[in-house]
Formats: sequence, structure tokens, C-alpha cells
Amino acid sequence: MPTLAPSDLAFVPFVSVANMMRLIHRIGLREMLVGLAGYIEADFLRWDAFDKTPRIAAHAPEGVIELMPVSDGRCYGFKYVNGHPKNTRTGRQTVTAFGLLAELGNGYPVLLSEMTLLTALRTAATSALVARHLAPKGADTMALIGNGAQSEFQALALQALCGITKLRLYDIDPRATEKVMRNLSGQGFEMIACPSAEAAIVGAHIITTCTADKNHATILSENMVGAGVHLNAIGGDCPGKTELAPAILARADVFVEYPPQTRIEGEIQQMPEDFPVTEIWQVIAGRAPGRRDAAQITLFDGVGFAIEDFSALRYLRDQLPGTDFCEKLDLLADPDDPRDLFGMLARAQ
Amino acid sequence: MPTLAPSDLAFVPFVSVANMMRLIHRIGLREMLVGLAGYIEADFLRWDAFDKTPRIAAHAPEGVIELMPVSDGRCYGFKYVNGHPKNTRTGRQTVTAFGLLAELGNGYPVLLSEMTLLTALRTAATSALVARHLAPKGADTMALIGNGAQSEFQALALQALCGITKLRLYDIDPRATEKVMRNLSGQGFEMIACPSAEAAIVGAHIITTCTADKNHATILSENMVGAGVHLNAIGGDCPGKTELAPAILARADVFVEYPPQTRIEGEIQQMPEDFPVTEIWQVIAGRAPGRRDAAQITLFDGVGFAIEDFSALRYLRDQLPGTDFCEKLDLLADPDDPRDLFGMLARAQ
Repeated sequence: MPTLAPSDLAFVPFVSVANMMRLIHRIGLREMLVGLAGYIEADFLRWDAFDKTPRIAAHAPEGVIELMPVSDGRCYGFKYVNGHPKNTRTGRQTVTAFGLLAELGNGYPVLLSEMTLLTALRTAATSALVARHLAPKGADTMALIGNGAQSEFQALALQALCGITKLRLYDIDPRATEKVMRNLSGQGFEMIACPSAEAAIVGAHIITTCTADKNHATILSENMVGAGVHLNAIGGDCPGKTELAPAILARADVFVEYPPQTRIEGEIQQMPEDFPVTEIWQVIAGRAPGRRDAAQITLFDGVGFAIEDFSALRYLRDQLPGTDFCEKLDLLADPDDPRDLFGMLARAQ
Repeated sequence: MPTLAPSDLAFVPFVSVANMMRLIHRIGLREMLVGLAGYIEADFLRWDAFDKTPRIAAHAPEGVIELMPVSDGRCYGFKYVNGHPKNTRTGRQTVTAFGLLAELGNGYPVLLSEMTLLTALRTAATSALVARHLAPKGADTMALIGNGAQSEFQALALQALCGITKLRLYDIDPRATEKVMRNLSGQGFEMIACPSAEAAIVGAHIITTCTADKNHATILSENMVGAGVHLNAIGGDCPGKTELAPAILARADVFVEYPPQTRIEGEIQQMPEDFPVTEIWQVIAGRAPGRRDAAQITLFDGVGFAIEDFSALRYLRDQLPGTDFCEKLDLLADPDDPRDLFGMLARAQ
């Protein structure tokens, strides 16, 4: 006897923004950053297991919408993400995102989630995971250039995973720097607001650039970067958007997530196609050297890769059982008889 | 003063399966099929305005998950869809889908919707739109081979748009045929259950094949197809999945949606790469001939293209104002100050 009520198969667990915030507070932001870094590391260690593709972008003069799919042969994930630097003028986020995890064997989604917050967390967790392998020994000071939506998460991840305790802050808008200092007060940082990028990097062991302008900006010029630092460049992440002078790239050893994507989107879009880079997973897996000496300039040209989102969604899914942090979304038509979609519709009348 | 309540920008209108069914009944299924065909036709007529890409597929032995993005420069849409023929064994749908429409200029989603039902409707509407241009004059009889989830929608669309009143039904499982006859009773069809595909096509002006097996099946062999018919082949829609003998393709004039995709997924994957095809939008726009004479065999090698989903989502969006057919989904993080994602999170504690 056909029933009208949808079966459990029809419903997809959904984590809203409100529930994501509850979850982060329940777990603790630092703990979650550490947990995410662990999942990302585990997936980087099985890099070859993934069916990888550069993200699929739709460009407009104002920005870009991207789909980032990836699969490990059992599980499938994708993220929808936009990047629109001028959005803040209309009160919108520069970057918003949501993502989905599905079973590859039957194609059914098993999780839909907000990913604006989760992306900020996984980006920071990735930066910290990478810095743990590339930053100079004893690094405790980070310059944070660009004090927008990503910056606090970067600071806390580098604190939790790499021992950063001093922040040297700069943004072209001093109010952004004030915001970071307000948000991070009482979090165990010594913070200094600097009048320029050049001032911010004085004495810094790690330099994080995360600015939002969509153009070939030169946040750092060649003579500003001294020996021995680790550059964590996460703001150059789409065609036409870079932050560093090419001469810095030429002096540094450059580490990337997925070269076919980074050569299009990252800082190295400014360099020849055969510019040498090292895949960061190789360093994490012990297959390629990371930092070789104290004088070396290392550069993580981070653009954000689909596997990191996949790891983040896996992490999220594993936190949900036994909690009320997800709703059930009536997303999939699921008739009693799979061949009788029409009958389900007819009976709903 | 920052508030805790999310702003309107944070919410994405969401059409659930239950609301899609309510909407279809409110509008009327035939009226909706006609409406969808109108939107698809309008978008086919501005074909060059679209930024097109073949769908992005993740393959497993059991099936495929695909993303189908497209943009007209102002609006962006994508569909998530799976195809897993063996899903019915575990009570799941072979094909499920959902989709999203966004503003390309700011990247914010404006509609998220179930698309399992909507895909069945748009596929049927596309078949009917195409048949209106290619079917022989006075066609009133359709063979429907494969009586699964798509079949009733195909029948009703071809009835509403092309005047089909007689159905000759065949499926390897007689219960599927019984299901169609039960579902379509009282809908103005004369229906005959046939013992074989060969029997089903006797006297048919239009032959629709929509079977689900993922292999190179030969639903129709060469000597079965006589002169003058229109073939509406919608079941051959991914690599390794075809329904027609190559010799039929060689005898027919073949019309397709988007050649780069159809050559990979459609019936013509069996043919050489330079096998001649006509883009169906050219026929609809009057730029290429459709049916030239009564003896010609025309074949629509339909695989489903992203523009059709885009049209369907546009249609859906235009039906929603003033109704309660959508919910508000808390999908986008939207802090008061776009640069203060962290502050929004902190205040939620």
C-alpha cells in the first residue's frame, strides 16, 4: 500500500549557518581547527586516491562562481563558492559557499551544509598544516596583511597548530585592523597595528597575505621580503588576482595544492608555465623536502582545493551523530516504487 | 549595533519535493509542461548568449554523479544529478537531482530546488518541443519503450504539445507497463500493452526509447525502424549507455542539444567523431531544416543539457512570487559587517 509520507531516503541532513555556529561553539573553534587540519592531512596522505579536477568557473566582470567537485571513489563532494570583491558595497559577503557530500555508489547526498564559515575554517586549517611543515623553527610572529573575513581564523589556526603568539596587522582600511584586534583580544595574542605592509613584516617569521581586491596588486614587493620567512599567500586565488611581486616568487621555493589549478588561479599565474613548484602533499607525506634551511624563503601559494572541502565535509559529518545540529531537508523525490515517480505525484494531489 | 538575527540576504528560497508537487498540481501538469517548453524554447532561441560547458561527471562502476553548470551572463544555474541504474534494487531512484539559480553579478543563490520531478518534466517538455519540429505531420501514435519513471511525463508532454493520443507500450518488465496504463488511465490516451519492442513500434509515428540499463543495449535493431518515423531517444545519456543499433543512426538525420556533450554521452558515442549532426536550437531558430520529407527518419539524440535545467529553474522562479511554495533556507552566512565573519560567530555564542 503506497504511503504519502516521504521515506527517510528522501531527506538530506542539512547544516544551516545557525547550526554551524552552534557546532563550532560546542566543539571549540581551536579544537575544530585542529580537527579539520587532521582530516585534511589524512586526505593529503592519500592524494592519489582522489579523482581530481580543477574547479569549474563562471566568470563575470564582478567576480566568479565556482564548482569544486572531487571524489575518493567511495564518497563524492562538491562545493559551490563565489568570489565577488565588490559585494561588501551592498552588504554582501565577498565569499559565500555551501557544499554537499554524497555516496558515489548510489548518488544520494548524505550531507548539505553551509560552507561560508566552514571554508574560512578549512582555509585556516590548511594554512596552519602547511606552515607546520614550512615555517622556520621557533616561529612565533606572524604578519597578517589584509584584515578581512578570513584573518581571525588564520591567526587562531596558526596559533593552535604552529605556536604563533604575536600578530603584526595591516590593512588599507584601519577599521579592519581595529576589528581584528577587538575580535582577538583576550585570545592570547600580542597584537600590533602597523601603518604599512612594510612595517607589518618587520621581524615576522610568517607573512600571511589575504587581501580581497580582484586585480594584480603588489601587496609585497621584492625588497620587502627577507631571508628565512614563510609566506602564506592565500588571497591570490583566481585569474587576474595576485598579491605578490613576481620577483618574490622567483626567490622563493613555492609549494602548491594542485598545480593544474594553481597555475591558473594562484600567484604563479604570473610565472612561466614550467615554473617549478612542489605539491604540498608530497611534503606532508615525506616524499619531497619542505624547508631545507633557515635562510630559505618558502611560499605556500594557497588557492583552496576541493580535497580540503571534502575533508571538511567528512569532518563535519563525523561530528553530527547524536547531536541536533542538522535538520532534515526534503530534497529528494523518493517514491515507494522508484519507477513510479508519476504515481507519487498523482497521490500527492 | 550588531544584531543576532540573520538578514534576508542570508536566506535562500528553497522548493522541497512536497512543495514541487503542490506547485505542479496548482498549475496543472500539462500546463506546466507547456510552460516549461516555452521557457526552453526561449532559451534555445538565444543559444549564443550562454556560457556552455559539457557536464562534469564523476564515474563509479555503479553509476555517475554529474554537475551541469551554465550561465547567460546575468544568471547562473547548475544541477546536481546522479544516474545509478541499479538503485531501484535498494528502493532508490535511478535519477535524483536538485538545482540552484544564482545571480552571476554577486554570486548569491536566489533559488534552490528539488529537481528529480522538475528534471522529468523538463526532459519531457524538451522531447515534445523537439518533436513538434521533427515528427511527421499528423502524428498521433507513439511507441513508448521503457516504462520507468520518465515515461508518463513523456506521454503527457507529447500529448499536450504534439497531439499524441495513442500509446503503444513495452517494457521488459510487464509490471512497469501496467503501472503506466494505471497512471495514465482517464488521461485521454488509447493505450496498448505490447509483447515486444518490435510489436510496440508497429504503426507508431514517434518512437520514444527511455530505458535505464547502463550498457550498450540494442532496444531497436536496424530492420525494425521504418521510413518516416521520429525517434525520441532519451535513454542513451552517458558513456557506455546506448539504446539504438548504429545502423539506425546511419540511416537517420540526427539532432542533438550540444554536440560536445552528446558525442560523449548520447547514441552517437557509437559513431565516428565527425558523424554529422544538427544542433536542435538551429532548427527551432529556423536556421537549419528539421524534417524535410515524409520518408525521412529523424532522431533526437537527447541527453539533457544544462540550458534546459536553467530554463526550468527560471520558469520555477517566476511561478513563486505570491505563493507559499518555497521555504527560506539559512544557507548563507551574512554578518552585518561583511568583513566580520568572526564577529558574527563570536556573537552567536
